[in-house]
Amino acid sequence: MGVVDNLVRRHYDEEMGSNSLVPIRQLHRRVSTWKEVSGHTVEAFIGDLDDYPFLYETVRSFEPEAIIHFAEQRSAPYSMIDRKHAVYTQVNNVVGTLNLLYVIAELNPEIHIVKLGTMGEYGTPNIDIEEGYIEITHKGRTDVLPYRSSRAPSTTCPRCTTAITSSSPARSGACVRRTQPGRRLRTNDPGDRDAPGPRDPVRLRCRVRHGPQPVHRPSRSRLPAHRLRQGRPDAGHAGHPRHARLHRARLCEPGCGRRVRVFNQFTESFSVTGLAEWVKRVSPVPVTIESIPDPASRRKSTTTRDRDEAADLGLQPHLLNDEHVASLVELAIKHKSRVNPEAIRPTVFWRTTKSEVNVSGGAVGE
Amino acid sequence: MGVVDNLVRRHYDEEMGSNSLVPIRQLHRRVSTWKEVSGHTVEAFIGDLDDYPFLYETVRSFEPEAIIHFAEQRSAPYSMIDRKHAVYTQVNNVVGTLNLLYVIAELNPEIHIVKLGTMGEYGTPNIDIEEGYIEITHKGRTDVLPYRSSRAPSTTCPRCTTAITSSSPARSGACVRRTQPGRRLRTNDPGDRDAPGPRDPVRLRCRVRHGPQPVHRPSRSRLPAHRLRQGRPDAGHAGHPRHARLHRARLCEPGCGRRVRVFNQFTESFSVTGLAEWVKRVSPVPVTIESIPDPASRRKSTTTRDRDEAADLGLQPHLLNDEHVASLVELAIKHKSRVNPEAIRPTVFWRTTKSEVNVSGGAVGE
Repeated sequence: MGVVDNLVRRHYDEEMGSNSLVPIRQLHRRVSTWKEVSGHTVEAFIGDLDDYPFLYETVRSFEPEAIIHFAEQRSAPYSMIDRKHAVYTQVNNVVGTLNLLYVIAELNPEIHIVKLGTMGEYGTPNIDIEEGYIEITHKGRTDVLPYRSSRAPSTTCPRCTTAITSSSPARSGACVRRTQPGRRLRTNDPGDRDAPGPRDPVRLRCRVRHGPQPVHRPSRSRLPAHRLRQGRPDAGHAGHPRHARLHRARLCEPGCGRRVRVFNQFTESFSVTGLAEWVKRVSPVPVTIESIPDPASRRKSTTTRDRDEAADLGLQPHLLNDEHVASLVELAIKHKSRVNPEAIRPTVFWRTTKSEVNVSGGAVGE
Repeated sequence: MGVVDNLVRRHYDEEMGSNSLVPIRQLHRRVSTWKEVSGHTVEAFIGDLDDYPFLYETVRSFEPEAIIHFAEQRSAPYSMIDRKHAVYTQVNNVVGTLNLLYVIAELNPEIHIVKLGTMGEYGTPNIDIEEGYIEITHKGRTDVLPYRSSRAPSTTCPRCTTAITSSSPARSGACVRRTQPGRRLRTNDPGDRDAPGPRDPVRLRCRVRHGPQPVHRPSRSRLPAHRLRQGRPDAGHAGHPRHARLHRARLCEPGCGRRVRVFNQFTESFSVTGLAEWVKRVSPVPVTIESIPDPASRRKSTTTRDRDEAADLGLQPHLLNDEHVASLVELAIKHKSRVNPEAIRPTVFWRTTKSEVNVSGGAVGE
């Protein structure tokens, strides 16, 4: 197993005056700790997907069977700070994914790619969100078209994932035809490897995001042949009236040259208010709930999920419960000195072209 | 009136061993010729939309009422040459359009933007292509969603236009909300200005493309308040069984904060074979028709147009006729020494990740 990381996530935190709620160790230290407690080696490659020679050499030397791609800048507020951040997000995400597709196509089209996305890609249509495709009958003719987001003027950062089945050959074509959709991801015991935390909760722990988002949920789900960590819930933002927890992964469908397989992993859906009340109920300290305007000016979601293919595959969802909510509150209390209250309040507003994110204070570094 | 140009189109020709069929003068010479024959001044700004400080300063100093944006790399084969060209196309198109949207939003949201696109964005769905939006009823609920291309794995270069109404806030949101959709394009006599050719056919003439595409058609259409030049037909490629002539323009709809207005300017639709036979019929010299495989491996088009809003606005279509086809053949014969036969044959193939475009010969420069 190997990990490719350009470590830019920590840079985002620095820039936004935010931080992981819990201190996290450097990647190299976590890798050596993991070796120590498990005997397994994780190779770490420090570099950027946008750097094609680096990526090419990494994939060539490591010879992966499968690549899980979540190297996109996926924070909607971050992409909406100003022009520079919008451009950065677009270029980083599009070029990184294109490079990945090309490197697979050139080196070994059998490499399986699992691409994580966010619900934001779909927006908030008033029809069910389908997994991958939708049959449309229109003026007497019928076609099965990729399910795309609808009127989603203000959802999430522009993501290349949407484009994997889109009209662009460089994006969709490269994935669909060039990666030669092959076998599925084959891992024997993914759970053991992808969530090292339990073996050494302090030295191996992962980032816990805090900020303008309702919930962090580091639980994971198990799939028989695939696994999609839930470490990054991409939950909605404060003020967004309703948010469904959704993970999407696109997998090239075995034996199908034209389609990628899409999983919408809706597990549960909560209103932000409901979550706030939940926190208040289980918190050992007094909680005051304050309503603030939605900085993203979204239309109210009427989203409902379609059937969940991941469940068909045997997904074991870990539902949010009192114990988990309480443990998060406890974690926040324990590490409150690391929290920058200014960074929790939304600082990026969708209706302006430039938001000031110079928060006072700043978070505590490790 | 002003023109912003990074002059990269000529670079593409150099790279591909192609050329304009007719010699064209340098931009600055054409601008001064136009001044001489018409008395009107066209300001020329040489620079790149991807260069934000340049773009900002240009728009700030020129103070346009409207901007017609066709600065995207829109050649599908060019974007499919290899990874480098795919990445270039994506970054150029996305960043250029983002920059344009931001500069308008920051300087004057009243500036009207007309964005030209290509039919490739739609792909070849088996349902009618709508102008902008489509009402979908699905599992008992109905919503009006942006019309997106369908199963279009291999159509055209990835274009930002598609994304203007897509799920990405940086792209769609910026256009839809930030440009504060205002008044329409107001020009008094657009025809006089946008097609200077007739006043001095030699010194002012525009590019005539030749290469793996069936027809060049420099006619123009008139709209009462808008004008969309037809100088770049974006016609299909040799081997593509059927190609509809389509121009798309998106205009922010007056008084609507959420929508852009889309015009699908289907004028006529021809099969490549039909065009070849037409050329054969009117040509003064013997013509041999050769069938070659479609390099783009597209699915056969079943595209039909929906109603044409441009026609509703009073578009006067100039239909293809014997005279026009004959004049193009005549032009090709006259300038045959400028033609590189190797560059006409497709050199870029969709199913490979890298195509060799090193054509022998090369075109004759001006």
